[in-house]
Amino acid sequence: MLPGNIIKVDGFLNHRVDTVLMNDIAEEFRKFFNINRISAVLTAEASGIPVATICAHNFGVPLIFAKKAKSDNIENGLYKSEVYSYTYKKTVTLILSKEWLGPQDRVLIIDDFMANGNAVKGLIDIVNEAGAALEGIGVVIEKGFQGGGDYLRNNGYNYKALAVIDKAEEGAIVFRKQN
Amino acid sequence: MLPGNIIKVDGFLNHRVDTVLMNDIAEEFRKFFNINRISAVLTAEASGIPVATICAHNFGVPLIFAKKAKSDNIENGLYKSEVYSYTYKKTVTLILSKEWLGPQDRVLIIDDFMANGNAVKGLIDIVNEAGAALEGIGVVIEKGFQGGGDYLRNNGYNYKALAVIDKAEEGAIVFRKQN
Repeated sequence: MLPGNIIKVDGFLNHRVDTVLMNDIAEEFRKFFNINRISAVLTAEASGIPVATICAHNFGVPLIFAKKAKSDNIENGLYKSEVYSYTYKKTVTLILSKEWLGPQDRVLIIDDFMANGNAVKGLIDIVNEAGAALEGIGVVIEKGFQGGGDYLRNNGYNYKALAVIDKAEEGAIVFRKQN
Repeated sequence: MLPGNIIKVDGFLNHRVDTVLMNDIAEEFRKFFNINRISAVLTAEASGIPVATICAHNFGVPLIFAKKAKSDNIENGLYKSEVYSYTYKKTVTLILSKEWLGPQDRVLIIDDFMANGNAVKGLIDIVNEAGAALEGIGVVIEKGFQGGGDYLRNNGYNYKALAVIDKAEEGAIVFRKQN
């Protein structure tokens, strides 16, 4: 754990990614969502991409990722959602070319880590802009004390976090018991 | 194909990623490298991550990705390499925490697309800084007329591009015949 309430997951979830664990995580998500209904997995760059890629691979659907900055490669119409990143302490715009998501899609959002939920809310915005159906939202680790998960549960989303951290202080991490 | 010699691969290789194709690509790379020797797959964020993740998953090793900007999450010593990105028209610094790569590692570099090869050269720098062994470099698509592949071939790297584009003009793409 780092100062400022940052929990370090670089060693298995992103940066150096344990792909065997990612495979187990994908199979765990399979139990909570109707995988046969989804047409794509959606995530945001960059740290969500590895786990979302393994999910999409195992579920036999494309992986779509929203980008965080405009590049010269994205010339077409864009879905956009502005989100504030506490990790990077700035507002970033999630963008996705309108070519890659549309009303025919049934989307499972997958992300590695959720605190206040801003990135996931941005992805929900993009699904709605596209007129696609949101089949579910899966997060590997939720920081349960920062509101993102509560927002999703309280607003009727089909949401599953595989681990919820209820408290993280003085070097100790307390996980929530889930059914 | 876009103006300025940009070849558009968003629809299958990145942004909306065909994970079935990525699986085939990983299995194709398996033929060219000694997979049993490698301990990790290394790539650069963001567009290289999906294909590199499937490779690492299929080869049973961790995926490591170098990041392009400093975040508050990376507090430790860093390997660094400055690279100029023609896509983004600016110099970016590839960074990797020293925790995630060391002299014990035997690395396969995987990237989606190579033109002048600057990103791959940056990853080679990082492997060398780490004192790790470079087992090979695999690229899905090489723009053969921009020098990156020639540099790697001429300098004795164990390098394989699955497709080499020799010419891209006026809407036509000419692939190089490979043995």
